[in-house]
Amino acid sequence: SPDRDRLVETMEAQASIGATDGGGLHRLALSEEDERVRDWFSAQMDAAGLSTRIDEFGNMFGRREGTDPAAAPVLLGSHLDSQPSGGIYDGALGVVAALEFVRTLDDEGIETERPIEIVNWTNEEGSRFQPAMQGSGVWAGAHDKEEEYATTDEDGVSLKTALEGIGYLGDAPAEPLEEYDSYLELHVEQGPYLEDGGHQVGVVTGIVGFVWGAITFSGEPNHSGSTPMAHRSDALVGAADVITQVRRIPSTLGPRTVGTTGYVSASPNSINIIPGDVTFTFGFRDPDDEVVDEAFDRVLLEADAAADREGLDWRFEERMRVSSVEFADRCVDAVESAATSLEYDRTRIFSGAGHDASHASRVCDTGMVFAVSENGKSHTEAEYTSWDDCYAAANTLANAALELARP
Amino acid sequence: SPDRDRLVETMEAQASIGATDGGGLHRLALSEEDERVRDWFSAQMDAAGLSTRIDEFGNMFGRREGTDPAAAPVLLGSHLDSQPSGGIYDGALGVVAALEFVRTLDDEGIETERPIEIVNWTNEEGSRFQPAMQGSGVWAGAHDKEEEYATTDEDGVSLKTALEGIGYLGDAPAEPLEEYDSYLELHVEQGPYLEDGGHQVGVVTGIVGFVWGAITFSGEPNHSGSTPMAHRSDALVGAADVITQVRRIPSTLGPRTVGTTGYVSASPNSINIIPGDVTFTFGFRDPDDEVVDEAFDRVLLEADAAADREGLDWRFEERMRVSSVEFADRCVDAVESAATSLEYDRTRIFSGAGHDASHASRVCDTGMVFAVSENGKSHTEAEYTSWDDCYAAANTLANAALELARP
Ligand SMILES: NC(=O)NCCC(=O)O
Ligand SMILES: NC(=O)NCCC(=O)O
Repeated sequence: SPDRDRLVETMEAQASIGATDGGGLHRLALSEEDERVRDWFSAQMDAAGLSTRIDEFGNMFGRREGTDPAAAPVLLGSHLDSQPSGGIYDGALGVVAALEFVRTLDDEGIETERPIEIVNWTNEEGSRFQPAMQGSGVWAGAHDKEEEYATTDEDGVSLKTALEGIGYLGDAPAEPLEEYDSYLELHVEQGPYLEDGGHQVGVVTGIVGFVWGAITFSGEPNHSGSTPMAHRSDALVGAADVITQVRRIPSTLGPRTVGTTGYVSASPNSINIIPGDVTFTFGFRDPDDEVVDEAFDRVLLEADAAADREGLDWRFEERMRVSSVEFADRCVDAVESAATSLEYDRTRIFSGAGHDASHASRVCDTGMVFAVSENGKSHTEAEYTSWDDCYAAANTLANAALELARP
Repeated sequence: SPDRDRLVETMEAQASIGATDGGGLHRLALSEEDERVRDWFSAQMDAAGLSTRIDEFGNMFGRREGTDPAAAPVLLGSHLDSQPSGGIYDGALGVVAALEFVRTLDDEGIETERPIEIVNWTNEEGSRFQPAMQGSGVWAGAHDKEEEYATTDEDGVSLKTALEGIGYLGDAPAEPLEEYDSYLELHVEQGPYLEDGGHQVGVVTGIVGFVWGAITFSGEPNHSGSTPMAHRSDALVGAADVITQVRRIPSTLGPRTVGTTGYVSASPNSINIIPGDVTFTFGFRDPDDEVVDEAFDRVLLEADAAADREGLDWRFEERMRVSSVEFADRCVDAVESAATSLEYDRTRIFSGAGHDASHASRVCDTGMVFAVSENGKSHTEAEYTSWDDCYAAANTLANAALELARP
């Protein structure tokens, strides 16, 4: 079994890189903080005796050979980047647990038939660059590498420039170099279901599909006092109308449907000017892709209606689309039987957040373990998982991976 | 009569200071651009032989003596600051027309019994610092000078620091130094009524009252995917609900009631985080102060209801409040008879925008002349008034002022 103290120490070590005053992380993809945590992770992989490679999309791999070098490897990992003001568990716990697994194999002198690889994926969060899960998406062939290189952050810096800037544009091809047996990922749940049900570990059966987009309304900037209401084309009123619908559409669809506007920007953004241009994002998710499509169609109809009411032009840009996935039974079973034999209170759960596992499941059989998120908080400094819960999930991951890797 | 070519040249000269690529102005109060236009205006006043003074709030005055130095002066002016992306007429036309008036008196060798003063008021726009009409408000005793010194821009720079920074913290007391006979201001209408009615000149009878405020909602930042809709406290949904009401409340009140949200800022403003904090502004205006009060009460009720629905904390800050004013009959009549004898098609009109004349009317009899705004556009680069319409209004102003100043 993994070493609980070492797991906690390693978690604390990564949490010190890009730490915020509020006890969270500011470690945006390909930022200076991301560079530092990558350097740290590289050194940890070297110290663990792994043979490492960095691919052309900055994904970082470490490999521990199996007794049968021709056997398809088991891959484990997650991501070390964070939201602008995120928690210390989101992503990092999965990377640290994967590292802890290979350390444990060494401690206990365990040889596996299959090679084990661990991975830190580039830009999972999708905050600075969109889409989210970008590195795993390129690796899995869901996205074209050159197109993703060209994505830019708010300052117009391209992803490729940012990768070069921190020295993590590697030379391994950004694709599976061989057939993989399976991919396992440990992540914090980021939602309330495990805690509400009093469970210790989540056996993830799949991941919701989702769509992200941005809508821009263009009206007429004008004086906020002397322009009669009937003469106005107020881009912010159009946006507000649609934002209220993004909130309300989900309740008319399914119990797991969610819809969110996370970003809004108005121009000229002055107290006494009718806003001329407003851009805002939306995202919808559901276990059923058809529900996502329905929500998406509905929000575009709402945008069209709002544009009509206010006399606005509007345009729409899709930022991300991922299908819902169901994990392979053998991976779900491996996770479930590991949790069961470790006597953790566990439950099957469908992920409402996106994960690199969504893309990995295109390449090989995939499964996930969820750790409890207290109060269901995530993408905020207030994110919290107790060390006991971190350990239960890491222990489950290790035992499931061991089964798949054939000791 | 004023010199049309010189009026146009002087307008073009000021429009070159802080000019934007789009043919407008970026000349925020107390910015480097404001410093340059003030230096230019100072030189124009010197060249016109006026005796100048700058007061402790940066208001710039120029005086032409009357034949009776003890007579109460007639004051004319407006403002040279602009919106972040404003037009070249808003404010500037009133200052240039006042300057042109004293130049015309000199050209034609006219002596007036009353002294004439012209003025450029500090921070009329209220974009960088709030409230709007700040310099005239301090001068007229509507605001306390020290309190207004302490107002800050978005970067935390205080108004007093900014005044010192551009060298326009003068030493004349920021108050009327004597009794004034009257104040006249020429301004572009900034609305559609003159053009819609086919008029050349507006005889302004008063100015709407208004209130400005900012509301901040605080909810819980959380993951946009894994947080069920029922667990959310989304500050942006609260804001959007209220913004749609700011748009709709006016139609239930009066024909001249307007309501606007010009500014919104969300945090952390990331596509996959439920917004934790959102601040937005609102403003309501009406000729009847009771209607403004009613709109204000209604928006606070809406905010409270939205906070309840979403489980948000909220707070409110009042940024500005000005009572509706009706101008003195003798000033309205002077403007009207000037326009009539010049044979301009003129109409009486009530201003929907705020003006320094609102505050001046607390000090002395006040009147205004409006020039036609094409397509009713203002607070945008697209603001436009033909030189013919500029001239008609300047000519009306000059003749009305001459009557009040007793030739
Ligand atoms: N797990 C996670 O937070 N991923 C980021 C992309 C998303 O919003 O789901
Ligand atoms: N006239 C004008 O645009 N004044 C600025 C203050 C306001 O918004 O009314």
